[in-house]
Amino acid sequence: MTITLAVDCMGGDHGPAVVVPAVLEFLQEDSSCRAILVGLEASIQPLLAKAGADLSNRITVHHATEVVAMDEAVATALRNKKDSSMRVMANLVKDGQADGAVSAGNTGALMAISRFVLKTLPGIDRPAIASILPSMKGHTYVLDLGANVDCGPDHLLQFGIMGAMLAAALEHDERPTVGLLNIGEEEIKGNEVVKRAGELLRNSGLNFIGNVEGDDIYKGTAAVVVCDGFVGNIALKTSEGLAQMIRVFLREEFSRNALTRLAGLFAMPVLIAFRARVDHRRYNGASLLGLKGVVVKSHGSADVLAFRHALRRAAEAARQRLPEKIATRMAAAMQNMAPEPTLCD
Amino acid sequence: MTITLAVDCMGGDHGPAVVVPAVLEFLQEDSSCRAILVGLEASIQPLLAKAGADLSNRITVHHATEVVAMDEAVATALRNKKDSSMRVMANLVKDGQADGAVSAGNTGALMAISRFVLKTLPGIDRPAIASILPSMKGHTYVLDLGANVDCGPDHLLQFGIMGAMLAAALEHDERPTVGLLNIGEEEIKGNEVVKRAGELLRNSGLNFIGNVEGDDIYKGTAAVVVCDGFVGNIALKTSEGLAQMIRVFLREEFSRNALTRLAGLFAMPVLIAFRARVDHRRYNGASLLGLKGVVVKSHGSADVLAFRHALRRAAEAARQRLPEKIATRMAAAMQNMAPEPTLCD
Repeated sequence: MTITLAVDCMGGDHGPAVVVPAVLEFLQEDSSCRAILVGLEASIQPLLAKAGADLSNRITVHHATEVVAMDEAVATALRNKKDSSMRVMANLVKDGQADGAVSAGNTGALMAISRFVLKTLPGIDRPAIASILPSMKGHTYVLDLGANVDCGPDHLLQFGIMGAMLAAALEHDERPTVGLLNIGEEEIKGNEVVKRAGELLRNSGLNFIGNVEGDDIYKGTAAVVVCDGFVGNIALKTSEGLAQMIRVFLREEFSRNALTRLAGLFAMPVLIAFRARVDHRRYNGASLLGLKGVVVKSHGSADVLAFRHALRRAAEAARQRLPEKIATRMAAAMQNMAPEPTLCD
Repeated sequence: MTITLAVDCMGGDHGPAVVVPAVLEFLQEDSSCRAILVGLEASIQPLLAKAGADLSNRITVHHATEVVAMDEAVATALRNKKDSSMRVMANLVKDGQADGAVSAGNTGALMAISRFVLKTLPGIDRPAIASILPSMKGHTYVLDLGANVDCGPDHLLQFGIMGAMLAAALEHDERPTVGLLNIGEEEIKGNEVVKRAGELLRNSGLNFIGNVEGDDIYKGTAAVVVCDGFVGNIALKTSEGLAQMIRVFLREEFSRNALTRLAGLFAMPVLIAFRARVDHRRYNGASLLGLKGVVVKSHGSADVLAFRHALRRAAEAARQRLPEKIATRMAAAMQNMAPEPTLCD
């Protein structure tokens, strides 16, 4: 099955300079994929010069006259830029010309445009952003990571279903474990929303293992960790801050004097291997879930390697028909839960 | 000024075996302090045998017949154990025989007992737990860390005031910066509670620098970071999980084969220096704020070094008359804000 990805070449801190080489590398490694490069043709074409015939045959350039700036107001991007590379990319998915989309642009604008163009799946109130974090057992899917700051219990249930389907699609694990992020393992712990979400998840038919705590994200206790967007964003950003501090402290200690620098030289291969294991570029590519189409958000500062990982995730989600799977699972959940008044809150 | 600390010898994973030696070391380093050791006299006395005359003169043993178990229900601890070491410790502070209290016991029970015995300060609806985390600029005070899971805007304001007073007392910084943990720096970010808490904090007279994000905790952007107990607990536990994963990965990489083990040997002094900088034992001693008395909670698994840090924090908070300072600041805030209807939510 050939998968065609629509790629927003103008997003991110580096635009086509990173996106185009990443697409070329990705197509080289995955011969079953094609790409539609969306953006200012004059910026994209020169970067394709190096591509051989095989790659060129699998690439189309789709000109779009406008660009959504990284700091642009969501409303402006949505209403005034009908020919932005982001909007055109989403249209290509909607029209069936592409099976999935990837952008490193403005997150808020990408979410708003994707939602407006593609619409949400039946039963999904709000799309969510799911990301992957490294864990001692591999990695953990965490959602929501900032799209939804005021969530009800039913939203957390929907996140659980979407996250489980995402993990199933990308990990080829039919019944991934799902945990609810809370401040204790006991059912009585947490605020009211979380307690009621726990009840819904227990009756959802998912492989729900109950409450998990913050440290369980990195222990790999559950394949999928569900939380509201506020908490998820804080957990993610706090982790980024701690990781950065540890990097800085390690570097400082190894460059303190000639002796420590020598030790650093000896330890270099080990430190490189260590860094590779926690390299955030390998975890690039957050999924916008709950839409009628596959949309993956790359980190704005992604380099070629990182963007390539985002492309891989999008291609796999499209290949696994993730939106259809979420829709099917949601329909089943809604049928199961219809008599439950708790869903109507 | 002599400071007397009441110390619960029975709390924590190790009980008197850790607490008593930690008190002895602490009294040795701080000759202006005295200690009342509370707990089963028969367990405590043998551990005092080694103490010289100078130390013995500054130590009293106060027998208490009961012990609150680490996993004991809060209600049982509060209602049925009137002669627990924890309860007797709190009574000593209430009666003015001690200037502050330290326990490594059951957090929930310590909070409930402290609140019941000591009562909250005027204007404080709920006590908070404030902890210290390392940062690139030194360290950051974060509160609340789990005592309050459903907070309103006025609670976050109170946390801001209490945290600022704590940082002022322990850091000797008259106007420590205060940040509100949020998912973006802009005032429009976040959920409704946080947005309104931002308004209250802006008008509070504190050195409020606005919203901060998760990574700012470790960047040291603000001296004090305010959040509700749910978010604070998740941030703290997530950090613990990530730190543990990094430790495990580093150890694994350095013990992969003979060559990496040799590299580890060369790098050992550097790794030790690095570990010392992020050693969580140095950050042990969370403050229970908002009570009419100084109460510090040590981590249950604390060793002698860690418990000594908790004792230091309690002594300094007592020396600086922290509860009085919080009361004064709260009274001023309540006067300032009285006409504001927002405080009445």
